Amino acid sequence: MKIRHPYLLFLGDAADQLAAKTANGVNVWRPEWCKGQFRLPGCKADLGIPDMNIAQAAKAGVKTVLVGVANRGGIIPPAWEKHLVKACDLGMDIASGLHNRLTDLPKLVAAAKANGRKLFDVRHPDRDFDVGTGIKRKGKRLLTVGTDCSVGKMFTSLALEKELRRRKVKADFRATGQTGIFIAGSGVSIDAVISDFVSGAVEWLAPANDADHWDLIEGQGSLFHASYAGVTLGLIHGSQPDALVVCHEHGRAHMRGLPHYKHPGLKDCIERNIEAAQLTNPKVKCVGVSINTQRVSEKEAIKLLKKTEDQLGLPAVDPMRTGVDAIVDTLR
Amino acid sequence: MKIRHPYLLFLGDAADQLAAKTANGVNVWRPEWCKGQFRLPGCKADLGIPDMNIAQAAKAGVKTVLVGVANRGGIIPPAWEKHLVKACDLGMDIASGLHNRLTDLPKLVAAAKANGRKLFDVRHPDRDFDVGTGIKRKGKRLLTVGTDCSVGKMFTSLALEKELRRRKVKADFRATGQTGIFIAGSGVSIDAVISDFVSGAVEWLAPANDADHWDLIEGQGSLFHASYAGVTLGLIHGSQPDALVVCHEHGRAHMRGLPHYKHPGLKDCIERNIEAAQLTNPKVKCVGVSINTQRVSEKEAIKLLKKTEDQLGLPAVDPMRTGVDAIVDTLR
Repeated sequence: MKIRHPYLLFLGDAADQLAAKTANGVNVWRPEWCKGQFRLPGCKADLGIPDMNIAQAAKAGVKTVLVGVANRGGIIPPAWEKHLVKACDLGMDIASGLHNRLTDLPKLVAAAKANGRKLFDVRHPDRDFDVGTGIKRKGKRLLTVGTDCSVGKMFTSLALEKELRRRKVKADFRATGQTGIFIAGSGVSIDAVISDFVSGAVEWLAPANDADHWDLIEGQGSLFHASYAGVTLGLIHGSQPDALVVCHEHGRAHMRGLPHYKHPGLKDCIERNIEAAQLTNPKVKCVGVSINTQRVSEKEAIKLLKKTEDQLGLPAVDPMRTGVDAIVDTLR
Repeated sequence: MKIRHPYLLFLGDAADQLAAKTANGVNVWRPEWCKGQFRLPGCKADLGIPDMNIAQAAKAGVKTVLVGVANRGGIIPPAWEKHLVKACDLGMDIASGLHNRLTDLPKLVAAAKANGRKLFDVRHPDRDFDVGTGIKRKGKRLLTVGTDCSVGKMFTSLALEKELRRRKVKADFRATGQTGIFIAGSGVSIDAVISDFVSGAVEWLAPANDADHWDLIEGQGSLFHASYAGVTLGLIHGSQPDALVVCHEHGRAHMRGLPHYKHPGLKDCIERNIEAAQLTNPKVKCVGVSINTQRVSEKEAIKLLKKTEDQLGLPAVDPMRTGVDAIVDTLR
């Protein structure tokens, strides 16, 4: 799976801005790849980039139309399909982050085939994986873990990649979820892998590399999430991380989707993740904490980060507010 | 998935006795369901039950032909298929524990359809599952966990079911692997479930039950196995176990399939499994240790079990040698 850019961001008839959060993430992290947005009548999202229809996108050199929007009712409506068919006819590939597969749409499949175009269903792995071996491999790897789902693991990993590259350190973000895959142009939706092969899929995704190269692996779920902890553990073991960054969102009331489950403390969370990661890399260290502080003021945020640093003896950052320099400093 | 019995155990041209270990397990635990074995020329396995061809099996009232044998080269050979087709023609269902699917054989699929018969590929879940909720449910559950793969988790779970039922306690074995599924007549091959849904699949497999009912859930893998620990953790969280039994094989040199990984000590293994299980059931307890002592003499085995009991303060049994009474005593 290698998704070609530049992209046209297909927003369809998104119900609100949140429905377009995948497309938004791509635009935030890869603005140079995003030529425009395509919105249908009724679309309530706007990424603030040029509006463009399929024909205009083709003329502008777009290589792939990204369906980076949550659809209503779980189906890909015919009103979307006709535009995607046209994109194939005009020589573009289609990549979708929806659960429903592009490859289940007969007309679109026919159009892609007739034009030699590719359909990427990034939520569904397009290959088989081997079972993980746990054999130590070269290169350095950092994995983001968290107290919960959706606490900024992807954002933190991308911020670390950006800062490492700025410092001329060889570094690659490795995507394990749909938005990350669009941003990286490749990756594996790890939660869609058959459970036996999760650690093997990560070994494939972040393979042996130069001794001074860092892979920044996007974490998923949490060891403390009753629904997904198994995914997280396979991801930890397959990563063989040298470094962990623990991510957290300040002020959340309970575990995402589980009102009856409280968050772990940061200290417990660090200890449990280190303990788990030591199986495949006994030298693993936690190198910092990344806290999403959007619910509090700048002043309170700085206070919170300072307090966290003092309590844990580790750098604590909010990538949006402070950047991740303090964590990157510890990696050198 | 509800596999009807009695069974004919199809051994094909098994290369040796080990290749028929699935069929052997079914015959050991459900001898009353196993009417006979069907062996093709060249078969080197023998379960010591009546030889029977497909026609004889149909006459004897067999409802399902079990393909409980490892095949050579990973394919289902035409020499097997014709007998399976005949079984469908004579009104029997087919259940297979192979990775290759019966449903990929067009002639067999046609025969099953024409005769209204069912094909069960027990290694592949035949339904979708929801994401686990972690919501506490009624009934008691015991999960077998282990220091490694293939250390007797299924055997121990079945021995516990048998002893509980002998004592008139309501108890059901819940199968999570192919041999267990044949023995239970139903279940989920948990390592073949998409990783996001593992804990949800276990919640479905062992649902709420009477307050005095025990589910004995067959464990898989190990928290200490670099390839499969994620599967194990999802299984632990979905089980919400009240009780854990830790299984171990005495005298193994290294983790199964991973020569570079050593086994954990029993104490560490108990602690780590309890710690993991507490997320969805804070009251979980380890109620005993089940050790496969086949590599040592009876005398040494008894000594080893006694020493283990003294060290851990828990009952230590070898289900083959001592039975599991000591563990069941702690459950009351």
